[in-house]
Amino acid sequence: MKRHIYLKMKTVAEAREVFLSRFDLDTFLPPEEIPATQALGRVTAAPVFARLSSPHYHCAAMDGYAVAAAATFGATQDRPKLLTIGTEAFPVNTGHPLPAGTDAVIMVENVHPVAEDQIQIEAGVYPWQNVRKVGEDLVAREMVLPERTEITPAALGALLAAGVTRLLVRRRPRVSLIPSGDELLSVAALEAGDLPPGRIIEFNSVVLAAMVEQLGAIPVRHAIVPDRRPEIKAALLSALADSDMVIINAGSSAGSEDHTAAVIAELGEVLVHGVAMMPGKPTILGVVQGKPVMGNPGYPVSAVLSFEEFAAPLLAGLLGRRPPRRPAVMAQVAQNIPSKAGLEEFVRVTLGRVAGNLMATPLPRGAGTITSLVRADGIIRIPAASEGIAAGQEVSTELLLAPAELAETLVVIGSHDNTLDVLATLLRRHHPGLRLSSAHVGSTGGLMAIKNRRAHFAGSHLFDPATSTYNVPYLARLLPNIPLKLINLVWRQQGLMVRPGNPKNIQGFQDLTRDDVRFTNRQRGSGTRILLDYQLARLNLSPEAIQGYDQEEYTHMAVAVNVLSGAADAGLGIMAAAKALGLDFIPVMEERYDLVVPETTWADPRFQKVLAIISTEEFKTTVQALGGYDTRETGVVQYEQ
Amino acid sequence: MKRHIYLKMKTVAEAREVFLSRFDLDTFLPPEEIPATQALGRVTAAPVFARLSSPHYHCAAMDGYAVAAAATFGATQDRPKLLTIGTEAFPVNTGHPLPAGTDAVIMVENVHPVAEDQIQIEAGVYPWQNVRKVGEDLVAREMVLPERTEITPAALGALLAAGVTRLLVRRRPRVSLIPSGDELLSVAALEAGDLPPGRIIEFNSVVLAAMVEQLGAIPVRHAIVPDRRPEIKAALLSALADSDMVIINAGSSAGSEDHTAAVIAELGEVLVHGVAMMPGKPTILGVVQGKPVMGNPGYPVSAVLSFEEFAAPLLAGLLGRRPPRRPAVMAQVAQNIPSKAGLEEFVRVTLGRVAGNLMATPLPRGAGTITSLVRADGIIRIPAASEGIAAGQEVSTELLLAPAELAETLVVIGSHDNTLDVLATLLRRHHPGLRLSSAHVGSTGGLMAIKNRRAHFAGSHLFDPATSTYNVPYLARLLPNIPLKLINLVWRQQGLMVRPGNPKNIQGFQDLTRDDVRFTNRQRGSGTRILLDYQLARLNLSPEAIQGYDQEEYTHMAVAVNVLSGAADAGLGIMAAAKALGLDFIPVMEERYDLVVPETTWADPRFQKVLAIISTEEFKTTVQALGGYDTRETGVVQYEQ
Repeated sequence: MKRHIYLKMKTVAEAREVFLSRFDLDTFLPPEEIPATQALGRVTAAPVFARLSSPHYHCAAMDGYAVAAAATFGATQDRPKLLTIGTEAFPVNTGHPLPAGTDAVIMVENVHPVAEDQIQIEAGVYPWQNVRKVGEDLVAREMVLPERTEITPAALGALLAAGVTRLLVRRRPRVSLIPSGDELLSVAALEAGDLPPGRIIEFNSVVLAAMVEQLGAIPVRHAIVPDRRPEIKAALLSALADSDMVIINAGSSAGSEDHTAAVIAELGEVLVHGVAMMPGKPTILGVVQGKPVMGNPGYPVSAVLSFEEFAAPLLAGLLGRRPPRRPAVMAQVAQNIPSKAGLEEFVRVTLGRVAGNLMATPLPRGAGTITSLVRADGIIRIPAASEGIAAGQEVSTELLLAPAELAETLVVIGSHDNTLDVLATLLRRHHPGLRLSSAHVGSTGGLMAIKNRRAHFAGSHLFDPATSTYNVPYLARLLPNIPLKLINLVWRQQGLMVRPGNPKNIQGFQDLTRDDVRFTNRQRGSGTRILLDYQLARLNLSPEAIQGYDQEEYTHMAVAVNVLSGAADAGLGIMAAAKALGLDFIPVMEERYDLVVPETTWADPRFQKVLAIISTEEFKTTVQALGGYDTRETGVVQYEQ
Repeated sequence: MKRHIYLKMKTVAEAREVFLSRFDLDTFLPPEEIPATQALGRVTAAPVFARLSSPHYHCAAMDGYAVAAAATFGATQDRPKLLTIGTEAFPVNTGHPLPAGTDAVIMVENVHPVAEDQIQIEAGVYPWQNVRKVGEDLVAREMVLPERTEITPAALGALLAAGVTRLLVRRRPRVSLIPSGDELLSVAALEAGDLPPGRIIEFNSVVLAAMVEQLGAIPVRHAIVPDRRPEIKAALLSALADSDMVIINAGSSAGSEDHTAAVIAELGEVLVHGVAMMPGKPTILGVVQGKPVMGNPGYPVSAVLSFEEFAAPLLAGLLGRRPPRRPAVMAQVAQNIPSKAGLEEFVRVTLGRVAGNLMATPLPRGAGTITSLVRADGIIRIPAASEGIAAGQEVSTELLLAPAELAETLVVIGSHDNTLDVLATLLRRHHPGLRLSSAHVGSTGGLMAIKNRRAHFAGSHLFDPATSTYNVPYLARLLPNIPLKLINLVWRQQGLMVRPGNPKNIQGFQDLTRDDVRFTNRQRGSGTRILLDYQLARLNLSPEAIQGYDQEEYTHMAVAVNVLSGAADAGLGIMAAAKALGLDFIPVMEERYDLVVPETTWADPRFQKVLAIISTEEFKTTVQALGGYDTRETGVVQYEQ
């Protein structure tokens, strides 16, 4: 195995400058002439001048009678004037040309027909009243659109009004996307058959093609190329013959099969190899045959971010547009976000406004989690010089949604339960304007979020052994001064999740101490962890005796995944999670899962909509279908303080 | 001529409610199943669940060697461990599956090759380190996207990662657009020949089709239909057979040839006829065969606004989207905007931030001026109950551009000169981020705008007869306390514009008093008006003796248009305007056209870019080509205070 070394890593800004400054974006592509009727969204390559005036004749601006204004002077209610139709007054509709000798229009509302061929008026009109004069909107030879103007629907109207039926626009660059990798399986192959282990669905080229298209350029998706240098070289040469820019994805990092940089260096020049960004570090920027060639990383989030930072501004420049820029807002981070110094990090976050503060909660940060981009409401850039952001700090956050949507988001932080997804889905169905943004930090974490005003409400299932009740003693202790209501969402089954068929024959907690059993735990402070510790104490079992007790996950689904994948043999969690993944489930106890709702939230009309959804039969039926739930107290207030 | 009467006019909000509530937008169109690869921009019609987990096998998250973590425990720099390749350590690249018996990856950077088949490590790895476990990103059966979600590039990736290759989305509604009117000439006919007087280019259907497309629906443009009831009826029936919504444009007002309402009433039901909005009053909303049918007004601005208020929210609802909503900002209006009570008025404005205040300057308000929509940066809605907005008042303004663009706009208010268009074009060419927004209110109006901090700089050509100089005495008098610089933009020819061939044989100012000559004037306070009055006084000519002296226009081009169209026989203006319209020009005098630049603007880096453009040869050459200009002092400071 050979260890390649990155060329000296550049910062994002340096790398972009090196790449973009290599091309004269305004002249790189010759403009093209197209019909105006097909010009929506295109950008003018030169100023456009009117061929005709609009209107191109004096025309009636109202329905009525065209007259010579002079003939109407002096008409009053007391001394009305009579005009003969056909010689002195001519019926016209809006848009009709003024007959010769007329220079004004009397509105039909102000005319009294007195005979077949005669009208009476009680007020005069001044010259050019109710007339659109030639060129009122546009004058022939006048500039209709400056160059570098995006053609909107209204601009189409102005062009055609000016008689411009063809115009010069920026050419749309063709961008070839070459997926490379022996492990890749095409979408078509996936549709035709199975997905064997070791193979990955090639979807980056679909994502990047969509981004190319959104920018206004033309994506050209190539077939998958194996990880061999001659094949990559041949694909690059063929793509260059057919397009204005090429993106090879991936083969850009320093592994044994990464040939992209070598091929670019052989055929042209590598300008940048390695950028101080995360995700996205193994980005290659180069030039071959005078055309931009990019090698972008294989992880989907990396591929998207390096496209956005380098390909997008280049393509925007070629199209005569300004680089795409997201609006930014200041947001307070809900938890510590450590970050590696030396790399500019792009952290995906969900956003929600609670008690006047815009709160940002980080999503999973792996470069492989494409869902983090789907769920993200914003992106925080942590500068290379920083080692992270402390909880509560305010930082600039780029918005991925419209600012107005932020005002319509309810934030729920706390224990995770699958019924919250049902709630979010029904809310979206019946109140499209309202969004539910959730973060899973366990029951105690949820109560802390309420205390610190970081959430509108919280999910909690904290069992109190002393009183054999749920949540209430914790509320009195942790949130003593906050007026709130506690309502039941569901009763649910907690139990041990094991692989289908229960191959390790696990029957209860005592089996967790066996040498051949590996457990996977939930984090401290979660209701499920408290339940586990309570049961272990009751049974006199020592946590130290359980393998994997120290390995913590944050959601029921994560625990279930560990069991399904064999990373663990058992985990404690809810039946819905086990059922979703086809695991076996050994019930341990039924527990109450409640929502903690501060009075300020309760009074909020948006929360009242949530409450209304919870009370519907549709919600209860959908929840029951998940398995392991009972809705006998759903929506019922359990406690108030 | 028959006078139809509007059904009782509804407010915009009432009309929209009546129209939209008539249809169940969520079920009106059945959803359709499409391939994921073609789903960009579509909206999910149901929640989408994962078919596969992602990753669907444990895979290396780094390039390196897969190992059993337990075999690495205890390795340190002092006591390194040796691992045999092929039995204890297996070379893997990112994405490769973990070989059986391994549960961690040692990064290639942390490995020392010591023999052909042996590596040495100096630190252990913990179980599952540098491994992406099954389902880390997505778990099979998990919800990937909720319903009513717009599919972004990243969402495409998540769908394919989850093995979802087909999905249910909202169907795109087909919208038929029927242009009706005897005066209409199609774009194709225009391309093939001339535009006779009395005929209008039919471009509304192109504009509306573009708006339909931007919303994500499918436009279907029909051929032009004559203003006859049977033809309109036949067109509507044929369109209904082929589409989900029909828009007839126009024939919606109360003129003699407006059959749309009658046809809708005959075939179905007219829900609304007449909306209290301006432009857009003669809007018809109806239903035929259970489908929405709209008759929208013929004036282009009316057609656009009534589409936006009624068709757009309906189509968005069918598509599962929220109604399009523009961001709004508070802006201060730069001049009085009177408005008719009883109608909600939509005023198009340009916007620019001057001295911290966002200033809104109204554009021409006629419903026929499509250019007002092209040039607009924002729209102010004046409520029906209001009679207008006073200068200086702050009002909510809907933005038509990105908020960031506002920070990049320089506002020039004052006298109009065609070289300002050249300046705007070159600025756009060389500094795409920077915009020049101009309003033409005459030289004195420009100085007032500087005084009231409504403009960054102003164009002025105020002649002072007492000193035979330009601008300086006016600055001292009107802006005594404002530090500023005066720089020359151009010297230019002022003169009398007459129709080609000078049919009325006009030789000088004395001819303006002739009975057979009609003059068109500029507004009080404009430099050209001051020049005229000075020349008349010098020649002892009385303004009362000049026909048309009282008719005022605000720009050189408007004066030129009056002459070209025969509305006037002569006007005073600059040579560039006469040349642009092919008029004859009788020079009267050369005058200086300067820019008044307050110190605060001069210090602004954005203005320094303007200044740099003015000094280029490109600017001077382009200006000289317009005719009637001299650039001998262009860019030279004339005065400072």
